[in-house]
Amino acid sequence: MPETLSHKLIAAHLVEGEMVPGQEIALRMDQALLQDILGTLVMLELDAMGIERVKTSPSVQYIDHTLIQQNNINADAHLFLKSACERLGVWYSGPGNGISHPVHMERFGKPGDSMVGCDSHTTAAGALGMLAIGAGGIEVAMAMAGEPLYLPMPRIIGVELVGQLPDWVSAKDIILELLRRHGVAGARNCILEYHGPGLDGLDAMDRHVLANMGTEMGATTSVFPSDDVIRRFMAARGREAEWSPLAADLGCRYDIDERIDLAQLEPLIALPSSPDKVVPVSEVAGEPVYQAYIGSSGNPGYRDFAVAAEIVKGRSVANGVSLDINPSTRQILAALIDEGHLSSLVAAGARLHQPGCNGCIGMGQAPAAGRNSLRTVPRNFPGRSGTREDSVFLCSPETAAASALHGVITDPRTLDMDYPRMREPADMTANEQMFVPPLPPEKARGVSLLATDNTPPLPALEALPEAIDAPVLLKVSDNISTDDIMPAGARVLPIWSNIHASAEFTFETVDPGYVERAKERGDAGHVIIAGDNYGQGSSRENAALVPRFLGLQVVIARSIARIHWQNLPCFGVLPLTFEEPTDLDRLQQGDRVHIVGLRQQLAAGQRIIATLNDTDTLYLHHELSPRQQAILSQGGVINWLNREGRT
Amino acid sequence: MPETLSHKLIAAHLVEGEMVPGQEIALRMDQALLQDILGTLVMLELDAMGIERVKTSPSVQYIDHTLIQQNNINADAHLFLKSACERLGVWYSGPGNGISHPVHMERFGKPGDSMVGCDSHTTAAGALGMLAIGAGGIEVAMAMAGEPLYLPMPRIIGVELVGQLPDWVSAKDIILELLRRHGVAGARNCILEYHGPGLDGLDAMDRHVLANMGTEMGATTSVFPSDDVIRRFMAARGREAEWSPLAADLGCRYDIDERIDLAQLEPLIALPSSPDKVVPVSEVAGEPVYQAYIGSSGNPGYRDFAVAAEIVKGRSVANGVSLDINPSTRQILAALIDEGHLSSLVAAGARLHQPGCNGCIGMGQAPAAGRNSLRTVPRNFPGRSGTREDSVFLCSPETAAASALHGVITDPRTLDMDYPRMREPADMTANEQMFVPPLPPEKARGVSLLATDNTPPLPALEALPEAIDAPVLLKVSDNISTDDIMPAGARVLPIWSNIHASAEFTFETVDPGYVERAKERGDAGHVIIAGDNYGQGSSRENAALVPRFLGLQVVIARSIARIHWQNLPCFGVLPLTFEEPTDLDRLQQGDRVHIVGLRQQLAAGQRIIATLNDTDTLYLHHELSPRQQAILSQGGVINWLNREGRT
Repeated sequence: MPETLSHKLIAAHLVEGEMVPGQEIALRMDQALLQDILGTLVMLELDAMGIERVKTSPSVQYIDHTLIQQNNINADAHLFLKSACERLGVWYSGPGNGISHPVHMERFGKPGDSMVGCDSHTTAAGALGMLAIGAGGIEVAMAMAGEPLYLPMPRIIGVELVGQLPDWVSAKDIILELLRRHGVAGARNCILEYHGPGLDGLDAMDRHVLANMGTEMGATTSVFPSDDVIRRFMAARGREAEWSPLAADLGCRYDIDERIDLAQLEPLIALPSSPDKVVPVSEVAGEPVYQAYIGSSGNPGYRDFAVAAEIVKGRSVANGVSLDINPSTRQILAALIDEGHLSSLVAAGARLHQPGCNGCIGMGQAPAAGRNSLRTVPRNFPGRSGTREDSVFLCSPETAAASALHGVITDPRTLDMDYPRMREPADMTANEQMFVPPLPPEKARGVSLLATDNTPPLPALEALPEAIDAPVLLKVSDNISTDDIMPAGARVLPIWSNIHASAEFTFETVDPGYVERAKERGDAGHVIIAGDNYGQGSSRENAALVPRFLGLQVVIARSIARIHWQNLPCFGVLPLTFEEPTDLDRLQQGDRVHIVGLRQQLAAGQRIIATLNDTDTLYLHHELSPRQQAILSQGGVINWLNREGRT
Repeated sequence: MPETLSHKLIAAHLVEGEMVPGQEIALRMDQALLQDILGTLVMLELDAMGIERVKTSPSVQYIDHTLIQQNNINADAHLFLKSACERLGVWYSGPGNGISHPVHMERFGKPGDSMVGCDSHTTAAGALGMLAIGAGGIEVAMAMAGEPLYLPMPRIIGVELVGQLPDWVSAKDIILELLRRHGVAGARNCILEYHGPGLDGLDAMDRHVLANMGTEMGATTSVFPSDDVIRRFMAARGREAEWSPLAADLGCRYDIDERIDLAQLEPLIALPSSPDKVVPVSEVAGEPVYQAYIGSSGNPGYRDFAVAAEIVKGRSVANGVSLDINPSTRQILAALIDEGHLSSLVAAGARLHQPGCNGCIGMGQAPAAGRNSLRTVPRNFPGRSGTREDSVFLCSPETAAASALHGVITDPRTLDMDYPRMREPADMTANEQMFVPPLPPEKARGVSLLATDNTPPLPALEALPEAIDAPVLLKVSDNISTDDIMPAGARVLPIWSNIHASAEFTFETVDPGYVERAKERGDAGHVIIAGDNYGQGSSRENAALVPRFLGLQVVIARSIARIHWQNLPCFGVLPLTFEEPTDLDRLQQGDRVHIVGLRQQLAAGQRIIATLNDTDTLYLHHELSPRQQAILSQGGVINWLNREGRT
């Protein structure tokens, strides 16, 4: 039977499970991608697991988020990560090399490989015909330790592209059209697989734009064929030998079919503050613009900067507009210099920033309060720019550059010029010296992790007792996010890798008394009660690890968001739901929950019977797989790997 | 009698006083330079003075310190400053244009003009034959309002340069040699006037290096002749018409003579953490290097970047070294792109940052704790890099680049290559559109200041009563700095222009109870007692304004640092010293100080008689001029200007 490319890629890496949508499958991971904010915890976890050398290859640590060094914390973290790379057999791509996703495509990506990364936009490597998935740090650490990655088998959405893009319309407009049609949850538990003749007009980095922002539709990942476009991309980087062709079989069937006629598209823009609030640019043309921001993994290609440069060449940005240029990779910056495009941008009044994630994750370039910022980045969630009352639009580089010139939102088709169709230079080879390769094993063993104030060893976690008897120390409402559990921001983010220190901020805005109560109770343990969708939002694993460190044993909620639900047993916390949702009202802070024969109950079925305050019976529910039960029984993944001796 | 150039420049601007070293003189200011951190207060002061249009021309507001926008505060401040420029008749040089000092030389500097700036390195314009002086913000505001600038007549140090610099030795090594000889206080109350045949080999931006860092020797300013080098510099920027020749008269006599044989110099380096801890680079060669930082007003020239580019061209920076490139101006960045130098730097592994002050004032690029950072910046005070436990060396671009290549401190003379002697391109014209000119007066009157949360109007200050009767609320030791009085740093700096909000941090590290005590006492007023050198360090005027806002009426100290002493009466605080230094021991927190007939006592002579706790007599001392007494009598400069109707 003719197969989709997604099925071929999954089948080639399938270790356990069946390819039935919704069923748990386990996939062998070839490569691993780490960014710096979350990579620090991954390294500490690998160290705690006793890993001598990672098994994924290549594994690459990128420094791209923490580039603003206002004190020594970020610089110290870079040194820690570099030492961890040396010790564990990981490539190190230091500050200045650029954003992980496009750099990985340039230097390491390989059609047909699987990859896990501790960043939600890891999916961008699907542009090369990779099976690339973002995951929580501990899952990345496990994959690096040689374990498979577990996930529910996704459904495959076939996105057929036909026709050719009109002038002034580019890749960003395609993904904005998909977001307009299907919204930010439109591809949840799905893979977006692109096919059709319209692909021929999309370069590798154009495909990156789509694969990257599939994440904004909730997709597990996005997949593209590896065709002649990809061969040329790799050849320009001296890597043609690593190229291989990959495509879906003719006549294959997708679970869901979608079709876009590129010729019918027009410049689109996502309004504040969600990527799916998409309208034609012409609808909001004339609105004043404070900032035009070009760069990020949402538009990382040489073309994306070159087209902006051609638009502003010989002109000047409007008085007072901040045109911010964020080169995505060192190589692309070098090419923009050599081809004269950087000169055009700088002369026209652009502000040039260092290659990296920068303002896309609120690291600089925050707009003035309430002023419109047009950005080529993938996300415009409220406040993500760093400005609480922000007004961020998502659009193509063409729209951003045209708007910078005029000082108001401008449909680029109204510019008085021919459309500059840009292609990257034939030679895009980089300075190989800027990537530090893994040390040979005999040298690596001599390297110690370069500890900093914020990288103490992870705290050891105890396994749950057979009988849990613990008070409810916190009862929270619906939709508590991992941001509520473990805040980000300038105060806390730099110390995320320091569990002892960051623990002080747990649930800070929800209930500032929680930490004190948890500490008083200590190892004797406690329970948290929650409404629906507990742990939604960011995948940050410390939202599970830190409460466990503070003594959390059981979460009982009406429902728990998927990634957080996976993270809880990974750190030894039992996630349960109510059989009867209204039972939520029966529990209050201070009540006592008693569960006996824990392991036996878990193994026997999905019902868990608990006693409330020694008197009432509570019927609870679990969905842990035998593997997850084993992990939970050991007190989390790290203990499990150490004691099972599976590595 | 043959005159020095300094005397000619002073005489041409003298409004009051005689040119006798140490005597107060008043100078008319032609131009004004504002940077963003302190410019905000200057604009609020001008507004409070009721100024409709500034009298200095050009007056230029630069955005160069607050370029990292992690939230909306800095961006909002830029909009406020832009609106203030429009209202008051000030040029606006927005973010991305570069550091005030080199940009001002490129675009506005004019031989023979005087200039005041609210930045200690304003002196750099002396490279063009200007008389350029840094001052507190309120003094800059007064000058912009048309008042003269008051200062003690400096002594003139004639620095004769003879011979030619050897290969691998450049301007930075000359000023480091002067710092080595004379230390950080070696030119206090002096002007450094350069002359001699050695000048011919120094381009305008090389002279900028020396004029800039004269500030590190405590100089009032530095002065260079306006010669053919300067004519060429201005011609390359299309400004030859504004050039005029200026030089000292042959045979003139300097108060102090100094001589440097350039041919005898070698590469020098200032060790952590003072600019005068200077040794030959060869003495510390081989020490490991974490960072090499090129840029800042301490080495802003095209040449400074180009020579580094030639050194690293075709090579790679050592594994793990951060080579940070901070272009000083948009124009220099453009030239570095066009001449291929930026390409060399990026390919060799440099990190490229936006044009501006950046890491020189701790805005990014902070080194890892305890790691050696080699910088071409003017200052290496402890912690100024942003890292508390920093280890910053000052050196030339040649030494920094050579050390980046080798990963250890390297005498550039040991590089295996010919010395690349770089000259800037013949055409250095800029995009004029990037400077926003003052609005015509009729349009300016229609503009309102764009208030932000951090730019409320300045609080009104009451004049001191004729009889002061107030308790000592704080007694502090020697060498209290303005940093101790009003902290900087990421928490407080962004709200400096908000007097109400920043007042909460007054004396935070010295005595956290002070603010509460001052508020309780309120307008009834209080006294601060201090040891020697009270108010040393930075010129920040809010160290006077904020305590006055909190009720401070009198400072009595053993001695008061000069700039802070000037700032106190400008905001209505009476600065006194003890006639008998040991009287310091007679006063404690809680004691009551009583002074009657204040204005009469001040006018009658330098002795002020006070009563301590209604029983003892205290003999105090003041040095306020009649002008300062008048200002003090009105409750500060703003009231004085408003009530005197002098503007």
